[in-house]
Amino acid sequence: MSIIQAQHIMLNDPAHVRVAYEPKYSHGSAFINGTYVDLDNAAIPMSDLGFTQADACYDVVSVSKGYFFRLEDHLERFESACTKFQLTNPYTKKQTTEILTNLVKQAGAKEAYVWWAVTRGFMPDGGDRINPNAYENRFYAFVVPYVFISNDEQRARGIDLLVSKQFIRIPPEAVDPTAKNFHWMDLKLSLFEANTANKEWSVLCDASGYLTEAPGSNIFLIKDGVLYTPDSGCLEGITRKTTLELAKEIGMPIHVERVHVEQLLNADEAFLTSTAGGIMPINTVDDTVLGGKAGPGELTTQLHNLYWTKRWDGWLGTAVDYSTPANV
Amino acid sequence: MSIIQAQHIMLNDPAHVRVAYEPKYSHGSAFINGTYVDLDNAAIPMSDLGFTQADACYDVVSVSKGYFFRLEDHLERFESACTKFQLTNPYTKKQTTEILTNLVKQAGAKEAYVWWAVTRGFMPDGGDRINPNAYENRFYAFVVPYVFISNDEQRARGIDLLVSKQFIRIPPEAVDPTAKNFHWMDLKLSLFEANTANKEWSVLCDASGYLTEAPGSNIFLIKDGVLYTPDSGCLEGITRKTTLELAKEIGMPIHVERVHVEQLLNADEAFLTSTAGGIMPINTVDDTVLGGKAGPGELTTQLHNLYWTKRWDGWLGTAVDYSTPANV
Repeated sequence: MSIIQAQHIMLNDPAHVRVAYEPKYSHGSAFINGTYVDLDNAAIPMSDLGFTQADACYDVVSVSKGYFFRLEDHLERFESACTKFQLTNPYTKKQTTEILTNLVKQAGAKEAYVWWAVTRGFMPDGGDRINPNAYENRFYAFVVPYVFISNDEQRARGIDLLVSKQFIRIPPEAVDPTAKNFHWMDLKLSLFEANTANKEWSVLCDASGYLTEAPGSNIFLIKDGVLYTPDSGCLEGITRKTTLELAKEIGMPIHVERVHVEQLLNADEAFLTSTAGGIMPINTVDDTVLGGKAGPGELTTQLHNLYWTKRWDGWLGTAVDYSTPANV
Repeated sequence: MSIIQAQHIMLNDPAHVRVAYEPKYSHGSAFINGTYVDLDNAAIPMSDLGFTQADACYDVVSVSKGYFFRLEDHLERFESACTKFQLTNPYTKKQTTEILTNLVKQAGAKEAYVWWAVTRGFMPDGGDRINPNAYENRFYAFVVPYVFISNDEQRARGIDLLVSKQFIRIPPEAVDPTAKNFHWMDLKLSLFEANTANKEWSVLCDASGYLTEAPGSNIFLIKDGVLYTPDSGCLEGITRKTTLELAKEIGMPIHVERVHVEQLLNADEAFLTSTAGGIMPINTVDDTVLGGKAGPGELTTQLHNLYWTKRWDGWLGTAVDYSTPANV
């Protein structure tokens, strides 16, 4: 099965059709510190430090064919991020699951992008701003119909990737990338750099030329049948974890270690992974056609299709019951 | 004149009294993408990338005795930050000045903290997210009554500072610190680290142990009558610039260069500078009492008092005309 065939399954299967929802939720649904609203009316206080100081952590889980994928893994990673940033989720994992499920139902989305965050909240009065316990942390969430960060056409032919020359990724010694966070300026500007260079996406290295991550995604390369991905300087992506499991399943040797950018330029195949895009094949890096042949590599295609086939079989899925209304 | 005397001038002078304002602006006033509101009702859309991806730049100017200080310098720095981050302020410098002035009048604040930002705005539809021109950038601002980040008592006795052991500052190769931005997690967590160590504020080094900046402030040290401050890895603070000018005025030799943390530990005096705090003397660094004597150093005190004396004489000030209503 080629990637294009996999796309056809995705586009035509009635299991993906959006279920009933009120028109006001057409753009999505949101939850703001205790209240459910439609996304168009979702706002956060201007003086929330999650805004003015990116003082927050967040996570994103996807829903496909009405199933959350690895929800428990995302919830655990989120709690871990809260701990790393000395934030406290005001809701338990069970309550968080209820909120996210309600939002998916409100949006009527069987294919959904589900985002939630805990922010530091407002600056406490007086000098207590250096005490994390003086803050009342706040919870926000939204759900929008799923849009691939790499669209069908791009995934079918492979992404043209730029290694950023202008930016390195924020190092773990400054901000821990394993705690998913709002610190995106290096990533964003590297995307604009890619655009200027007529590329479609970017990847960032650390100060020593070792690969870290791409905007919103992890990077993998394949050389002589062996799968490589960086062990540090990046988010511990859930799709990354899934990919490593799938590679094991099909018998690929795996190296999770420091990976130099030169290895990427000499790779046979490469791809990005992301909750917002699944497995996204890379066609070229800078001006190098990987493996000397345009299009997604063979092993990449195999992993891509296995990922979606297993997901659509309900693997590690949590069903959303759309037949009952959201409990809001 | 000691720092305590300077504080008494500040606290008792009727020139600092808040002028008439509607009670709804008691917490401050705000401007959201074209609309004036009170701060309690000021909110930004949840899906503005300024929130979810810290994709924004900002600036802060202070008002004292009804005068903006170096407003033109702040406006210029802000425009420069927009350029560095490929953001476009939808308002000219003249329009920005009008908005900020209206907010100060609405808040009735003769001592004010004036904040404004331009965010990336919403994610554009389709794949155009890598093109900065596809975004409609948004302008937000707020004004609150001025609160010193270092209060009178702290400034009179000097701050107990911690050199962060757990975090380095985000390096310029990742996010340019001369473009004032929302990337604060390293700074915030270093403050919590300081709190745990029973200190009051923190300062961060780069990966090689050279001083960068403190949360929201620049760092200076004095050794044998010579003034030192880092030349890179930090915001080019307006109070920093002012301090360098004042030091020149009183004949102090100035070294703007790489400054190692060891130099701070061996300094005779040190202080922080910030729009939100002016010149803030340091008492101890880690457990070292600077100059072997508790309290603000002599030259630091001289600079502190000169700073406020000149400001209150209207130096580089732009008067706010509170006798006419805000044009909103």
